[in-house]
Order: sequence, then structure tokens, then C-alpha cells
Amino acid sequence: MSDNQLSAFYQRQDILGESYNPAQALRFTEVPTFMRTPMVSNLHGVDIGIIGVPYDGGLTCRTGARYGPREVRNQSSLMRAINVATGCRPFELARVGDLGDVRFRDIFSLDRAIDDIERYFVAIADTQVLPLAVGGDHSVTYPILKAMARRYNTPLGLLHIDAHTDTWPAFAGSKFHHGAPFRLATDEGLIDPDRTVQIGIRGGQNFADGLDYSRDHGMRVITIEEFDDLGWKAVAQEARRLVGDAPTYLTFDVDGLDPVFTPGTGTPEAGGITMREAQRLLREFHSVNLIGGDVVEVSPPLDPSGVTALNAATILFEMLCVLVEAFRRVG
Amino acid sequence: MSDNQLSAFYQRQDILGESYNPAQALRFTEVPTFMRTPMVSNLHGVDIGIIGVPYDGGLTCRTGARYGPREVRNQSSLMRAINVATGCRPFELARVGDLGDVRFRDIFSLDRAIDDIERYFVAIADTQVLPLAVGGDHSVTYPILKAMARRYNTPLGLLHIDAHTDTWPAFAGSKFHHGAPFRLATDEGLIDPDRTVQIGIRGGQNFADGLDYSRDHGMRVITIEEFDDLGWKAVAQEARRLVGDAPTYLTFDVDGLDPVFTPGTGTPEAGGITMREAQRLLREFHSVNLIGGDVVEVSPPLDPSGVTALNAATILFEMLCVLVEAFRRVG
Amino acid sequence: MSDNQLSAFYQRQDILGESYNPAQALRFTEVPTFMRTPMVSNLHGVDIGIIGVPYDGGLTCRTGARYGPREVRNQSSLMRAINVATGCRPFELARVGDLGDVRFRDIFSLDRAIDDIERYFVAIADTQVLPLAVGGDHSVTYPILKAMARRYNTPLGLLHIDAHTDTWPAFAGSKFHHGAPFRLATDEGLIDPDRTVQIGIRGGQNFADGLDYSRDHGMRVITIEEFDDLGWKAVAQEARRLVGDAPTYLTFDVDGLDPVFTPGTGTPEAGGITMREAQRLLREFHSVNLIGGDVVEVSPPLDPSGVTALNAATILFEMLCVLVEAFRRVG
Amino acid sequence: MSDNQLSAFYQRQDILGESYNPAQALRFTEVPTFMRTPMVSNLHGVDIGIIGVPYDGGLTCRTGARYGPREVRNQSSLMRAINVATGCRPFELARVGDLGDVRFRDIFSLDRAIDDIERYFVAIADTQVLPLAVGGDHSVTYPILKAMARRYNTPLGLLHIDAHTDTWPAFAGSKFHHGAPFRLATDEGLIDPDRTVQIGIRGGQNFADGLDYSRDHGMRVITIEEFDDLGWKAVAQEARRLVGDAPTYLTFDVDGLDPVFTPGTGTPEAGGITMREAQRLLREFHSVNLIGGDVVEVSPPLDPSGVTALNAATILFEMLCVLVEAFRRVG
Amino acid sequence: MSDNQLSAFYQRQDILGESYNPAQALRFTEVPTFMRTPMVSNLHGVDIGIIGVPYDGGLTCRTGARYGPREVRNQSSLMRAINVATGCRPFELARVGDLGDVRFRDIFSLDRAIDDIERYFVAIADTQVLPLAVGGDHSVTYPILKAMARRYNTPLGLLHIDAHTDTWPAFAGSKFHHGAPFRLATDEGLIDPDRTVQIGIRGGQNFADGLDYSRDHGMRVITIEEFDDLGWKAVAQEARRLVGDAPTYLTFDVDGLDPVFTPGTGTPEAGGITMREAQRLLREFHSVNLIGGDVVEVSPPLDPSGVTALNAATILFEMLCVLVEAFRRVG
Amino acid sequence: MSDNQLSAFYQRQDILGESYNPAQALRFTEVPTFMRTPMVSNLHGVDIGIIGVPYDGGLTCRTGARYGPREVRNQSSLMRAINVATGCRPFELARVGDLGDVRFRDIFSLDRAIDDIERYFVAIADTQVLPLAVGGDHSVTYPILKAMARRYNTPLGLLHIDAHTDTWPAFAGSKFHHGAPFRLATDEGLIDPDRTVQIGIRGGQNFADGLDYSRDHGMRVITIEEFDDLGWKAVAQEARRLVGDAPTYLTFDVDGLDPVFTPGTGTPEAGGITMREAQRLLREFHSVNLIGGDVVEVSPPLDPSGVTALNAATILFEMLCVLVEAFRRVG
Repeated sequence: MSDNQLSAFYQRQDILGESYNPAQALRFTEVPTFMRTPMVSNLHGVDIGIIGVPYDGGLTCRTGARYGPREVRNQSSLMRAINVATGCRPFELARVGDLGDVRFRDIFSLDRAIDDIERYFVAIADTQVLPLAVGGDHSVTYPILKAMARRYNTPLGLLHIDAHTDTWPAFAGSKFHHGAPFRLATDEGLIDPDRTVQIGIRGGQNFADGLDYSRDHGMRVITIEEFDDLGWKAVAQEARRLVGDAPTYLTFDVDGLDPVFTPGTGTPEAGGITMREAQRLLREFHSVNLIGGDVVEVSPPLDPSGVTALNAATILFEMLCVLVEAFRRVG
Repeated sequence: MSDNQLSAFYQRQDILGESYNPAQALRFTEVPTFMRTPMVSNLHGVDIGIIGVPYDGGLTCRTGARYGPREVRNQSSLMRAINVATGCRPFELARVGDLGDVRFRDIFSLDRAIDDIERYFVAIADTQVLPLAVGGDHSVTYPILKAMARRYNTPLGLLHIDAHTDTWPAFAGSKFHHGAPFRLATDEGLIDPDRTVQIGIRGGQNFADGLDYSRDHGMRVITIEEFDDLGWKAVAQEARRLVGDAPTYLTFDVDGLDPVFTPGTGTPEAGGITMREAQRLLREFHSVNLIGGDVVEVSPPLDPSGVTALNAATILFEMLCVLVEAFRRVG
Repeated sequence: MSDNQLSAFYQRQDILGESYNPAQALRFTEVPTFMRTPMVSNLHGVDIGIIGVPYDGGLTCRTGARYGPREVRNQSSLMRAINVATGCRPFELARVGDLGDVRFRDIFSLDRAIDDIERYFVAIADTQVLPLAVGGDHSVTYPILKAMARRYNTPLGLLHIDAHTDTWPAFAGSKFHHGAPFRLATDEGLIDPDRTVQIGIRGGQNFADGLDYSRDHGMRVITIEEFDDLGWKAVAQEARRLVGDAPTYLTFDVDGLDPVFTPGTGTPEAGGITMREAQRLLREFHSVNLIGGDVVEVSPPLDPSGVTALNAATILFEMLCVLVEAFRRVG
Repeated sequence: MSDNQLSAFYQRQDILGESYNPAQALRFTEVPTFMRTPMVSNLHGVDIGIIGVPYDGGLTCRTGARYGPREVRNQSSLMRAINVATGCRPFELARVGDLGDVRFRDIFSLDRAIDDIERYFVAIADTQVLPLAVGGDHSVTYPILKAMARRYNTPLGLLHIDAHTDTWPAFAGSKFHHGAPFRLATDEGLIDPDRTVQIGIRGGQNFADGLDYSRDHGMRVITIEEFDDLGWKAVAQEARRLVGDAPTYLTFDVDGLDPVFTPGTGTPEAGGITMREAQRLLREFHSVNLIGGDVVEVSPPLDPSGVTALNAATILFEMLCVLVEAFRRVG
Repeated sequence: MSDNQLSAFYQRQDILGESYNPAQALRFTEVPTFMRTPMVSNLHGVDIGIIGVPYDGGLTCRTGARYGPREVRNQSSLMRAINVATGCRPFELARVGDLGDVRFRDIFSLDRAIDDIERYFVAIADTQVLPLAVGGDHSVTYPILKAMARRYNTPLGLLHIDAHTDTWPAFAGSKFHHGAPFRLATDEGLIDPDRTVQIGIRGGQNFADGLDYSRDHGMRVITIEEFDDLGWKAVAQEARRLVGDAPTYLTFDVDGLDPVFTPGTGTPEAGGITMREAQRLLREFHSVNLIGGDVVEVSPPLDPSGVTALNAATILFEMLCVLVEAFRRVG
Repeated sequence: MSDNQLSAFYQRQDILGESYNPAQALRFTEVPTFMRTPMVSNLHGVDIGIIGVPYDGGLTCRTGARYGPREVRNQSSLMRAINVATGCRPFELARVGDLGDVRFRDIFSLDRAIDDIERYFVAIADTQVLPLAVGGDHSVTYPILKAMARRYNTPLGLLHIDAHTDTWPAFAGSKFHHGAPFRLATDEGLIDPDRTVQIGIRGGQNFADGLDYSRDHGMRVITIEEFDDLGWKAVAQEARRLVGDAPTYLTFDVDGLDPVFTPGTGTPEAGGITMREAQRLLREFHSVNLIGGDVVEVSPPLDPSGVTALNAATILFEMLCVLVEAFRRVG
């Protein structure tokens, strides 16, 4: 695609008939789409699609993540075109669009809501679009993985930053909840546990079941203590080695970060990853065969200063930068 | 019941072995039960039971009401023994206990959660205990009405303070949601629409269906404009006349109040009732044959100053005062 | 315009290719345009255009109003299709679109920023579109009045709700500032002082100059004390009588409301109008020959609970309802 | 005193050697003294002295009032020279200075802290200065009354706006606490109960003792319900009649206002006075023989939006306006 | 004690008569006791007792710590049964109960309040219960040490994490205040300065007296700079070596952490310990002969996001884990 | 200057006629000057002058920095006389005074506001006073540098901590804005780019222009990644070497810190410097020939917990400590 075509993709027309790029406009203006990219409804006109999944019916603790997409959109106006650390200019390499939100036909029943999500990601998986999702609680990743694993016809590798392994069994009446997506995904062959790395694990648990599941199935669980001892670089190297060259999905639960970076999340755990570490870790994934990713568990009502959504938007931008590298290798 | 027995009911023993009344203790101390009343698990030892219903899965908009019971308990420590306006001393007239929270077996499916609530209120309805519930979203009132209507074997009168009629049809995949309890209750004969008064109605609606339902079924809908023109006293008189002498339930959605009194609620509507009006209105219901009530839709994450929970705790105290009058007439 | 055409105007297509009306979608979803109306850049496809004017360089006190349009858009998702109090259904009567924000070429110089605003409203005035603006500080109303007075080729009547007369002379180096628009507009013949009504005036002033200017030029200044004594109905009647049948602009500074309704504003003054009064007052203007209006001085950083933006969005909805009446009489 | 002398009193010199009046400067500048008046340490150079009493050791519930003087000073920068409602220009009628704060030698023992306060007000009482105090909790009024009653050698009249009568007996180990000042003052003959009016009383109490004390000693207790029924004007007339022409002190506990106006206070009680009522009530006291006053119980840590301190600063300004009238009659 | 007995200890009965463990219940439900452990008033039925000391009369700066126990109880619902980092399962090793709060007979005089605290801890010291206290300000540790030193009949070792040495002389009229407990304790032989380690010391001081006292008496003062250079592991090793095998008390002032982890505290000092460091440091104390401990200086009104109380609850959980190790070795 | 003279400089007299040092008073008392130093208007009576520059008209994103000086003054009451880490006692080495704020004649035009600032710093530069400025946005540093470079008659060295290089070209209609001061200063020879070190650079940019400018002109740009790899000590050593012995200015934009330390700033960038690093870095500059400095971009409305202003006050204190060393070498 030519630079002109790319440039045209990002243009909008104001009521004076002047064409301009909203992402270059004053950052307190404009209707807040993700990183002020264009709203698109035609999947064939976009390379990377950022999509909101405003659902928090899978939470077992503090709610509010249904407002995550809105507020991440809002704070993502602070993102800009060039990643100063890496030089990456994602909007010059791909057409990145805001796909809007998953529309729910049913929000009062977790299993049916999950169907609604799957329906959207199946539509995406039927195209060449690489998806970046913004949750919502972590239960939304399971239907995404269902759609994406089908697309690649193989269990996916998983880079998973989180305080929790999210491999727990049924709870409070449902096997689908925000602590279960990667157990479901393993059981159904959507992800390959040997190519799954869980980074930042810590806190307390009422049962050992989830941690045991991860380890027993061959996932690499890197606790925060191990992360602290090894450093982000060694962790990144091991993770890259484990996921290998096959298609890999990247999921970032903001509670993987320390609660001072993300007070606005549903199940905060003290003593987590810093943003400086997280950004450097993510950048090392530029050579991974990434086929999509998500940022989840941003709860704006619990975030009086907005710092959670700001950090989530920054994580989203770093993920976009490494995803665009994968897109360029493939596209 | 003798004064001594009542007094003993409210006593707790500290680790020094000293007996004291927590409700008389310093208001920043003590584990926060509702109004610092005793935790009770034996329904036969209590006259009026305050119970938390920490469920917000019926919300169509802003969440957080699952934390309502906790924060109302916390702010209710500011309540005291004598109602200065009316002279009522509820704790000298009845054994008022904190029944804990409804325990949910299933929180991920609205219809099954409603069953869990019903199970608790059926147990209460099987005794002489008068319940005061603290939500939770307004969907919790429907299973309460199911249990209470069965107890009295008659459709109940309803005093309903709210911005919305909550008589809407199925939405987003469920007929059970926080905008529907009084349509369900009417359809099932749990309440008598001719003895139903809805006070404070206002705002916007996407369909006229709910308002039409209320009016077509004979409910008395008093909009905020009519309330403003008539005044709280005339409204109270008409409401008392309409509900008559038969058993009546009192349900108070805090969004009936103006959002400055209750910023922490799920669907605020500008231009509502003031606390001064609400308190004087409620006090007029002392002669109604009240058999229970609830305060719902307190969402603490949306309530940075705590004023919503404080006002809800005050409403709860005023409701307790009029309920205790009914208890004394009957008991 | 047929109902079908109107309905089509409000439709959007999602990535599944399904057509739907975002204003009917779940209120925590969707990119937040004003009342979830469509983004339009073609002025000829719209009847009433809501436009953000994200500028706060005219403030002499507390800043932040540049984020007003964003947050009013966000909270306006709580608005719906039917005004319960009046029965008005604005979206069935007119094509109401979100025109985006005024784009500023210069934000560091108040006089040049005012030129940027004027440029946009001249473009609107050249069409049949009726504008509803969302500020920004009150300095933005002056360039709007310049454009609108030229369109109607006559000084406009002015319905002005505010704590301040905003008829002050030059201050801190500029005659253009948020306390001056109506002095400039009078001096330049953009408004007719005899058809100007200022409602809610109160507080303190360092000089009597502004109040004297208003009164000396024949404006009707209704202080909050007079408003309190007369009541909203009598005030509305007098205001309607004074502005008569000629074109009239409606400007609502949220500091006209009491600070408990609008803590998030630049120059709050204790003791103001309540939302209940404001809504009822505005509804009386349905028979006025309104040609546009604005809501200004919402400062989200000073609004921890969001109640200011919620009330401003509600005011905007009430203004839309009366403006649509005028549109239907004319259109 | 000549206008020139008054003008000179308010001047300050900046580092360029230019003389200016800080109260006329931009409201986000300047070190925040009360209403940006000059800091004075010489009592003989001032007519009305505003003084902070940053003590909250008398609180039985929520703390933080020790920061009241700081934050009221901060918000009082929003006050200006002319009272628009009454035309009063206090700074053209008297030298109003900021006397700094009472300095405490002992903050860990309530009785000794009260001695520290008394020491300051005795110094003031030895001069012609009329004091306006900013608390601090309400326990600080008792030592003020001690000093002022001695100065006038007679029990004082008392205009008392509050949710509570503050005539309670010893509690939690001390007879000096924020609920007791007017019982102590009556017992010691500092105030005349027959010339004492308590306005806005409401809420709950654990014992009837305080209310009984007030009534039994002849104080006029005007509950919020009676206030609501009579209206501010009739209340003001009765209060003026009762206090008569003899020296009268005015004490305003911000919890007399509804908690939406003052969320940041130690013992909020729902259903209180509005600011519009409070301002109009206070203005009626311009003909009272006022000899001082205070605003107390502002707790900034509980005031996320700052509205409590803003309202307290406005109350302070209204009190200054009526006090300056008394000063002019006497001075 | 058998597993069954332990399990029974943690059971509660709901109003349906069903027995359950509140600590396993949904984390937004239940009356918030510390970590949802049972309220106990009989000291002989418990091994480790967590007790609130809601007193903040010893503060010289920002107040609010009297609400510390309430809010730590509230946030401690996020704690769970297994410490993922260490595998420790404290509730399977000991009966851990919530002892309620110290009840104060006198809160207006620091010295008498200290007597009230001592009275409670003497009662605890007379049993085999190991206490974990939650403040309150740091002045509460002195009476705890008085009781505990008497129990062991020897000066205690002290592990002290804090920004301040709290070895200052009398201030503002009292030798008992939140900056003095360890000077008093040393002077009275309650702690052994040679077995005292103060970790995290930093900030500013108006006098060198306190630091000099610590060093002159042989305490090991580890400033934050030294901590930064040595790392948590080396610091832990030195601390363990210094306190040796004799009975040792662990006191954790949350201002030892950086203010981003604990904005809600009375005397924050920039540049402190991170939670990741603090947790790893504390875990090294599992082999110390711990006989009790406390977490102090949590001030909820200064903590808008709740992160301070969350971190304090996590510190409390880590302390419980190491304390239970000591209990098992002894018990 | 003798100790007695210094001591007298800091004394203030209270209304009892007692002399005392406000900086030693209780920290919740006193009108908040910077670190409770005396207000001075005579530049010849002071060695180091702290001055507020309450201007935020240069911001391109989030506003509010005009309230920076007020809130830094407020939080700076937490600072004390001795720097525990270094032993420095700045107030025993120099007369440190609060010079008040720059008074603006024009706030509505950035270029004229800059003239107002320059006028003040020219006055300071004409004396021996070393200035410490508190912004305000970063545009204020340019006129400061104009005045200071003229005083020393040489381009200054620059130690610059920031997330951004602030060497960008004209934007939104002005070459003067908060992203441009060091480009303007280089172009005009006010600073020596070879003696300029920019530390903490990161985030995103829409154009490479600014970074290119810095590097092309010979500035040493230390990104956060390089800072992370080298450590604060090596960075400090290189910075000291580069600035050499000639006069050097120190400018600290609080967005150089990670947003968790400074949520209240206009253009936060994730992944920044920690306070522990920042303090240790700054202390290494004690041997630099510092001639002044500033702390900028504190926006209190965006800082709900106050931690931004607290950290800024701490940075100011550390800067004062190293500046006083330079003063002592020269003075």
C-alpha cells in the first residue's frame, strides 16, 4: 500500500470541507476513537482493527470493566505516531482502524454474552485483519481465542501478562468467568500449553487448583518473584524461545502491573510489574509471530486519577507497535 | 418483650469480657453491621431483619451496586437511636438485626441469581420477621415481592420512589432486569397496580412502553413535576389513601433522589427529589400497613464523597422508623 | 422528511454488516458522540448540529473547560429518545447530528482563537442548520453570536442563564474573555439588550461595571433572589414576553446552577438555580423563536463524580427539545 | 478612616516594587490568605480580624477539620469586593485582616488546647477588633465565647446554625468536645439561653439529653422541619426578635447545611439547609448587634470537589458583610 | 488442633441454617472482618488475634488514621487462603480471629487513650494469643510494647519499617505521640536497642534529635539509600542476624512505603520502599521469633483510590504468614 | 551572615506579639508559603528566592498548571529543615524567601505573558538572588533563561529532567509553547547545547523534529531506557561532566517522573523515573555551578490524592539543597 493510500485512510473531513488527520489534532479535541484512528465498519479496508469488548459480566470481584473501552479510547488520545523508544511508526505501516464495540444481544447471561463475542471475532477471523481487543474483563479472551485458533487451524502460542493464571475451574455457577479463560482454551485445544508463558503471577488464592493446572499442563509460570530476579530481558528471551515461530496471541491483564499503575482494576494484587518493565518486555516481542492481542480489566470507576486507562492505552500502543511488525512480515 | 430483653439483644461482649452496645460506641469503631445492630443468623430471634442483597447483574448501564450493602453498612454507623424529627426510637421498640447478605450460588446468570434471592426471602417470609433489604440493583425487588406476596397470600400495595417506573419489557436478552421488576410483579399478581404509587418519575426513555404499562394497568404515576407542584405532603396523603390498609411494600430506588444527593447510582436522572422532601414524605407512611421494604441502586465506586451511601443509610433509618410502627401495631 | 428517511439518518453499520441505531444501544458501548447521534461533516444533511468548542483560553480563574465537549459527549449517552416530562421526541422530528469540534489553528492567543470559532459558525450560518454548541468557556459565545446575528441580519434576542452578567470590560489584557461576550455583542449590535434576559445573577464582583452595563443598556437582570421570590414559571413568562417573536439565542452557563449541581466549573457561585427549576424553566421556551444555543463552562477535571457533565448533558437535551420545536415551526 | 487609608491597608508590594491589591489580582495567584486580605500581627491596625483555629481534637466522629482554615483560605480567593445581592462592600467599610492561626502549645489534650484558643481570643477581646473565626471543630467556639463574654461583661445572644444543638454532656472522657460548647457556655453564663436561637436541628441522637437541655433552658430550637415550614424569612425575623439589641455572636456549623453542600464535614446529617436559604437568612442579620462569629467543621480530606470549602468561604463572606454593618454602627 | 477443629472455627451459619466459610465467599459480600475471619470475644478460642486500634490522637500532621481499621478490614476481603509466593496457608495452621477494636473510654487526651490501649493488650498478653494490631497512628505501638514486654519479661527485639525513626522527644505538649513510641520504649526497657532495626528511614527533620537518639542507643538505622544500595535480601539478612532468636516485635508504618503505594497516610515521605521489596523483605522474617506486630498510619480519607488500604491489608497478610510460622514453632 | 541574622530572617510575630519560626510550627497551620519561608518583596534581603509562575497558557493538552504554585506551596509544608539523606540544612546556610507570584498583565496571549515573566526574572537577575521557580507549564522556562543568560553573559549549561525534549517548532499558532523552550533558548544562544543534558526522554511523538533538533545541536539525550540501563549514578556523573564548571540551570518537568508519581500533570508519559532515582540523581548535582532552577507542570485539578504536588515539593526541596551549596561556594 502506498504512503498516499495510507495517508488517505487516516483523513477525515471537517464541516468546512477541510481534510485533516484527527490523530494530529489537538489532543483535547475530537470524538475519542482508539488513538484517534478512523471508525471503520468494512473489515476489508483495514489491516489492524482495534475493537472494544465492553463486557464485565465475568467478574467475581469489583466491576466496572464494561467502561474500559470508553476510557481507554479517551486516554489513548495521548498516544502519538512515533514510538520514541523503538522508532516504530505503526500508522505509516498499516491501516489501523477502530472497529467499534462488540454489540451484545444478551448481557445478563455470561454464556450467551460469550457467544456474542465469538460471533464478532469469527467475522474478523474470516478476514486478514489482525485484532487488538480492549476489554472488558478477562472472560472475553476465551471467545476471541476460539475464533482465532480456528482461523489458524492450530493451537496458538500465548504470551500472557497477569497476576493470575486464569486457569481456574467453574466458580459461582459458571465455567466461563474472568479467572478461567486459559483453562477452557487449553481443554479445547485453542492454545498450546507448552507454548504458553504466564508472567507476573502472584498474590493469594483460595485453592491451588489453577496454579496446579497451569504447571501440570506444561505452561511456563513466571511468578513476580522470578521476574524480579531474572529481569525483563531474560524473561522476554525465554518467552520468545518458548512460543517459537508459530502463531501467538498476546493477552495483557492490567492487574499484572502493580496496583499503583492500575488502581482501577477488578482484582488488584500488590507487588506487580512496573510500566517501565512492561514496556521493555513487550518491545522484545517484535519478532514473535503475533496474530492478535488484548488489554483487559480496566475499570474506570475505580480509577480516580485516570492513570489506569492511561497505562492501558500505552500498553495498547506498545502492542500495536509489535503487532504491526508481524503484520509487515506477513502482509 | 421487656426493655431488658431488648437491651440484652443489642449487647455484645468485648475481649475484656465487658458487655456493651456497639450502636452506642464511637462511630469510627466497630465492624460495620447495618446501624451497628447485631449479626443474627437465627430468624426467630429478631423482629426486623436488615439484609444485604449484593447483586448488580441486572444493570443495563453503570455497575457497582454489588458494593451497596457494604458501603451502606459503613455509612449507617452515622445513624443513631432517636429520630429527632419524629421522636421514634426504633431500637427500643423491636429487635432489629443484621441478617448478613444473600449468598449467591450463581452470579453469572440473572435468572438463577434471582432464584438465589427468592430462596432467602422465602425463608424470611416463613417467619414473622419484617425484612428491610439493601441492594444491589432494582432487579432484586422482584424475587423479594415473590416471597412476600406468597406470605400474605394477596397482591401487595406498593409505595415506589424512583426516577423510573421499572415496568419495562424484556431487554438485552432477559425479562429480569433492573427496569422490569414491577411489570413482572404485576403480571404475576404479586402487587396490585391499583394500590401502586410511583413517585418521582422523570428523565428520558427510548420507548413509551414502560410508562404506558404503568398507566394502563392503573398505577398512579406521580412525575417529579407533579410532585413539585403538589408538594410532599399532598403526595403522601394521596399515596396513603391509594394503598389503603392492606399489606404494602415500600421500595426506594435512590435514583428517585436528585443526582446531587446520589451521584453514586447506575442510572441517574437530573432534577429529582431532595432528601428533605424524601424524609418528610417517608415519615407520613408511619400509618401504612408496611410489611417490608428496600433501598436499592447504591453504587459506591461512583460515589467519591460517600454522600450517596450516607443518604441511603438515612433513608434506611427513616424506613426502619415507619416499619417499626407497623411492627408494633401487629406484633 | 419521512420517518424512514429520519430513521436511516440515525443508522450505523457494525462490522457484521448489521444496521442499528447507536442511540438505542447499551449505554456503556459506542464511541461517545453527542447523544450518540451520527458524526456528520456535510452540513446539508442535518437539521440541528451539535458542535463542540473545546477552548478555555478565555478563563480568568479555574481552567479545564477545553475538556467540556468530550465529557458532555460521554455523559450524554445517558440521554434517550423521549422527554418524559413533555413527550417531545426530538430525533423523530429532526436530523440531529454531531458536527465534531471546532478545529483551532491557534490556541495561544484568545483573539485569534475567536476567529477560528467564528469561521466555523459562519459556515453553519450559511446553511439552514440550527447550532447547539458545547463549550468551552463563555468567551466562545461571542463569535457564535457574530455569525448568527449576520445570518438573521438583526440583533438577536438572548435568553441567558448564568451566575454572571458577562458584560464586563477588558481584563488581564483582552476585551475578549469569558466575562465579556454580551458586552461585546451589545456594543456590536449582535444582540438586542431590550430583548436580553439574564437569569440567576449573583455572587461577588470586584467592580459594579458589568451589572451597571447590563442594566443601563436595558437588559433584564433577574438575580437569584428575584428568581427565588418569583419562581421559575413567572420568570419564564416574563422572559418569553421580553424576547418576543424575533430570533432568539439561548445561552446556558452551567455556573448559573448551584455549585452542588456543577462543582466542575470555572467560577462557581454559591446559592444558584436547581436542576429541577432549570429544566422546568427551559421547557417554557418551547414557543420562543429559538435559532440556536449553547451550554458552556463544564470543566471535567474539577468534577470528580461526573455530575456536572451529566447535568450539562441534560440541559443540552432539554435545549434540543425546545429547539426542535422551533425547527418544526420553521422547517 | 479615609478611603485612602483603607486602600493603603489592602496594598502589598511585589518584588518589582509595584504596589497592588492582592484581592484584585488573578484568582489563581497569590498566597491564599482569607479573601486575600493582608496578614496582620498588630491587632491595633485592623477592624475585623479573620483567624484560623486549626484544631480538630474535639471530634467524636470523622476528623480533618484541622485543615479547614487552610482550605477555606484557598477557596476564599473566589470571593470578591461587592456582595451583588446586598450591595455591601465590606473592604471599603473596614480594615479586614488575616490574623493567622491560633498557635497551639498542646494539641494532644483537648482541655489544654482550649486554653490555647482562649489565650488568643482574650488578646483579641482586649482590643476593638471583631473576630471572625474559621475552625476547626465546634469545640473551638467555647473558648471564643469565654473571651467574648468577658469583653462585653454580659451573657451574649447566640445565632446558631447547625444540625445539632451542641448542648450535650461529657462524652468519651471530656466535657469539652464538639457537641458540648453551648451547654458549657450556658452553664458558665457566657451565653443567654433566652437569646439563643438554634436553626436547622435534625438527624439522630443516642440520647435526648442535649435537645432537652436546650429546650429546658429556654433556647429556641428551630428544627429543619420547622424551618422548612416557616421559610428563611420568618425564621430570620423571629431570630432577630429573640436576640434583640444586645451583643450577639453568630456561629455557623457547616453541617447545618445539607450534606450535598458540605460533604466535607465530620458529622453530616441528611436533609439540611440549602445555600440559597442560608445566604438569605444570614443577610437578614445585618441589623443585629453582632460582635463576632465563626464558621466551623470544614474537613477538606472529606471534600473531593472542594464544594464544602467554597460554601464555607461564601458563608464567611456573608458573615463578614453583616458583621461590617455592625462595626460601622459602632465604630 | 485437628483440621476439623480448624475448619469449624472458620464456619459461620447463614439465615438458611447453612454453614459456610465467609473467607471463601464472594469477595463483595459479607460484613468485613479482618480477612473475613470470625469475630471472637473469647481470647482462649484463638491463636492469632487481629485487633483494630482506631485512634489517631497522636498525629502531628494529617489525621484520619482512626478509620484505618475499618478500611483495612474492608480491603482485606481481597486476601485469600494461600500465599502464592511462599505456599503458606495461615488459616490451616492457626485459628486467626478478629478481636474487634480497642474500645476507648477517653479519646480527647492522648495519655489516657494510651492507657485504654494498654488495658486491652495486657488482657491479650495474659493469654497465649499472638496479636496483630491495625492502627491508628504509630503512638499506639508504645502501649502494645508495654504489654508485650511484660509478657515475655524481657526487652523485645524490634523490626521496624518506617520513613521515620519515631524516637523523638516530647512535642506539642506530650511525650506520647506518633513520633515517639520507640524512644519511650527504649527508655523504659521495653525494647532492646541493640536488637532494633529501623528500615526505610528518610525525608526531612526539623531537629537531628531523633536520629541521633536511635544511633546513640545502638539501633541499626537503615536509610532508604542504604536499602537501595544493599537490596532487600541483604537488609533482611542483617536484620535477622541482629534480632537473633529472642522474642521480637514487627511494626510496619505504611509511610515506610513510597507515597505512591500509600498516598493515604499522615506524614508521607517521597522516595520509599516499593511493595515488591516490602513483601520480599517481610517473607524473610519467617524464621524470626515473632511475638506480634502491627500495621499503622493508614488514613482512608486521604486515599481516594483505596490503594493504601489494599497495600496495608497485603502487608497484614504477609505478616500473618510469618507470624503463623512462629506460632507453629512454639504452639 | 551570622546565625542570629539568619534566625531573625525566618521569624514571624503572632498576634500575641510572640516571635516564632513558622517552618517549625505544626504542619497543618500557617498560611502556606513555599516551605513556610517568609514572604519577601525586597530582593536585597534574600539569597534564594522561590517564586511562583502561575501560568498555563502554553499547554497543548491538559490544563491546570496555573494552580501549581498554590498547591506546591500547600504541600511544601511537609518539608523540614534537615535533609536526612545528605545532612544539608539549607535554612541555616542562606536566607530563603517566598517572592510571591509573577503578576501577569496579560494572560490571554502567550507571547505577552512571556514578557510578563521575563520582566520579573530580569529584576531578579539584576540582583544576587538565585531563583527557584515553580510553574506553571514549561513555556515559562524560556523567559527565565532569557533573564538568567543575560545576567551571566554566557549561554548556560542545562540539566533537564523531562519526558520530552521540549525542542519542538511552532505549534497551534505560536513558537512559544510548553514543548518549545529549549529550541528557542538554543536558537537565541541562551543555553549551550553541548552543555545540555536531557534525562528521562520517552513516549510518543507525532514528528521526529524535536528529538532530531536536540541531537543535531549536540544535546545529550538520555532516554528512559538508557537511564534504566546506566542507573542514576552513571547518568549523574556524565551529566556533571558535560555541564562542567560554568553556570548551569536545572529544570525539572514533573512528567519526567512516572505518572504514578505525578498523575497531576499535563502530558504524562508512562514508564518514567521513580522518585527514589530522581532524588539520588539530583543530590549528585551539589557540585554543579547551579544558578537557578524550576519545577514545572504540576496540575492540581488532575491530582486527586495530592501526590504530584507532594513529590514536586520534595523535588523543590532537593533542588534547594543543591542550590544552597552553590550559593555558599559563591556567596
